[in-house]
Amino acid sequence: MLDQVPALLAGERRVAAKMITLIENDGPEKQEVLKALHPHTGNAYIIGITGSPGAGKSSLTDQIISALRKRGKKVGVVAVDPTSPFTGGAILGDRIRMNDHYNDKGVFIRSMGTRGSLGGLARSTKEVLKVLDAFGCDFILVETVGVGQSELEIMTAADTTVVVLTPGAGDSIQAIKAGIMEIADVFAVNKADLEGADRVVTEVEVMLDLSQRSRSGGSQTWRPPVVRTVAMRSAGIEDLLDAILAHRNHLEASGQLNEERKNRVKLELSEIIEHHIKDLIRNKVVKSGLWDKLLEQVLERTIDPHSAAIDIVDKGLVRQE
Amino acid sequence: MLDQVPALLAGERRVAAKMITLIENDGPEKQEVLKALHPHTGNAYIIGITGSPGAGKSSLTDQIISALRKRGKKVGVVAVDPTSPFTGGAILGDRIRMNDHYNDKGVFIRSMGTRGSLGGLARSTKEVLKVLDAFGCDFILVETVGVGQSELEIMTAADTTVVVLTPGAGDSIQAIKAGIMEIADVFAVNKADLEGADRVVTEVEVMLDLSQRSRSGGSQTWRPPVVRTVAMRSAGIEDLLDAILAHRNHLEASGQLNEERKNRVKLELSEIIEHHIKDLIRNKVVKSGLWDKLLEQVLERTIDPHSAAIDIVDKGLVRQE
Repeated sequence: MLDQVPALLAGERRVAAKMITLIENDGPEKQEVLKALHPHTGNAYIIGITGSPGAGKSSLTDQIISALRKRGKKVGVVAVDPTSPFTGGAILGDRIRMNDHYNDKGVFIRSMGTRGSLGGLARSTKEVLKVLDAFGCDFILVETVGVGQSELEIMTAADTTVVVLTPGAGDSIQAIKAGIMEIADVFAVNKADLEGADRVVTEVEVMLDLSQRSRSGGSQTWRPPVVRTVAMRSAGIEDLLDAILAHRNHLEASGQLNEERKNRVKLELSEIIEHHIKDLIRNKVVKSGLWDKLLEQVLERTIDPHSAAIDIVDKGLVRQE
Repeated sequence: MLDQVPALLAGERRVAAKMITLIENDGPEKQEVLKALHPHTGNAYIIGITGSPGAGKSSLTDQIISALRKRGKKVGVVAVDPTSPFTGGAILGDRIRMNDHYNDKGVFIRSMGTRGSLGGLARSTKEVLKVLDAFGCDFILVETVGVGQSELEIMTAADTTVVVLTPGAGDSIQAIKAGIMEIADVFAVNKADLEGADRVVTEVEVMLDLSQRSRSGGSQTWRPPVVRTVAMRSAGIEDLLDAILAHRNHLEASGQLNEERKNRVKLELSEIIEHHIKDLIRNKVVKSGLWDKLLEQVLERTIDPHSAAIDIVDKGLVRQE
């Protein structure tokens, strides 16, 4: 697979698809491929789209693709939402061809399977973003359902996060539930032609007022704009894209984009280190029975947790070679 | 301080206060003291009380203390809520003496300062619980404001978590916001004599219906009861305590108490290991400049994150001696 890196960089779709499968399956040469791609990443702008099931995230994603294509941009889409038509299509083996994006060479759509652990899903989704970045996408849209730690974690990879809300059925409450309020850079109130849209907009604005008040403030503060859309009628899409690009300008002008990407690399390094060390512990300490032995001793109170932990690090890691 | 462990075990309040200060200040002999206390812990039942500011957590805590005292129990209280009168009292140097609990030898109240990092606060709060456990408390109440990762983390130390809600002002929404819905074992709808109490109860029940549906079910499932209280008029307190004790019985009968405490020790071990390894990395890798060097190289894309992380582990930990 490593020999196909040049083909990916040249924009061969078939290769992109194969490399993403390699990542999903945690296949051989995965690390080598990611290593080879790394110098060619960092050019794509990542837009996260999240919200409750039924909020119309996929229709909105579909419309944003069209708007970006009109501006001549190459677009990648990663759908991690099991309720998304994009994903559903893949699961059912019956890919939905929204607006013929699947036939457009300038659009690459991929749904992520939800097999395996959710923590693993977040990690592999971030790796897929790198493939699409190296593939030459100007923008990558990541669609996730806005519930659960793992989905929130995926959103940390986004430069701009759009939270999609809709009128009715306690939807704004649901959105707030999983803490996605805090991660929104832009709010889209979709289905804005339905009754109750005004109420949702007001609720969000009030909550923004409250959260602004508790922040330190300063000239660099970004207040998430609330944009009304009707994805099914292509209404408000240009406004939404403008809001996203305004956020991008804000991040670039304030230096926050570099800062956040730097933090993301720090986080990534920490995650890999943690993962690697856990592997070491699992291989050395758990397999040898030391972990269970010490755990039992702590529970029986013949050893204290701190001494046990130091034992594990010493015997499991530092002195191992 | 280590020589005063027997005095703590004998129930000397002055010693308990000094040991907690030792822990808060991360003072000398802290690990040795905790080590000496460990064999004498595991007897206290930990009750977490959390909810939005103004929900009446402190009044409710105050009432639960009285109810437990009536049953002859020795009670510890740790207030980690900066908006709590318990904590406020400590900060202002003007301790509020609710119902004379401060003069009751069977009650030990301590507020945790909010100096230092929040991650550190969660860790030291858990350590304080151990001191009060060894001190002989039958029950320990931990009061935290229900927002923020750190407060949620503190609640992982509780055997039973009570989430306090009140009618009005989007309070149930606030509670749900930080994900505390998921951690509730018992709901207390406080100020239940106010208008809107029924609506709050209904909202919570509906959400419980929804979350029950998505769970695997089985005979071992605990559905959090929703109890109405009016702390200021001592109404519903016995019902609340009964609900807490019913949850305790459920945990004991199903074997979950042992299971959860075992998981807590596993978590604690993992946390200490992680902390210890981060210290090692900080001391070896950050001080030597390797971390910054590799971070820059990843950002300049001359090295990939995976190789950088492996380098850090190898050079920073394993090969260090």
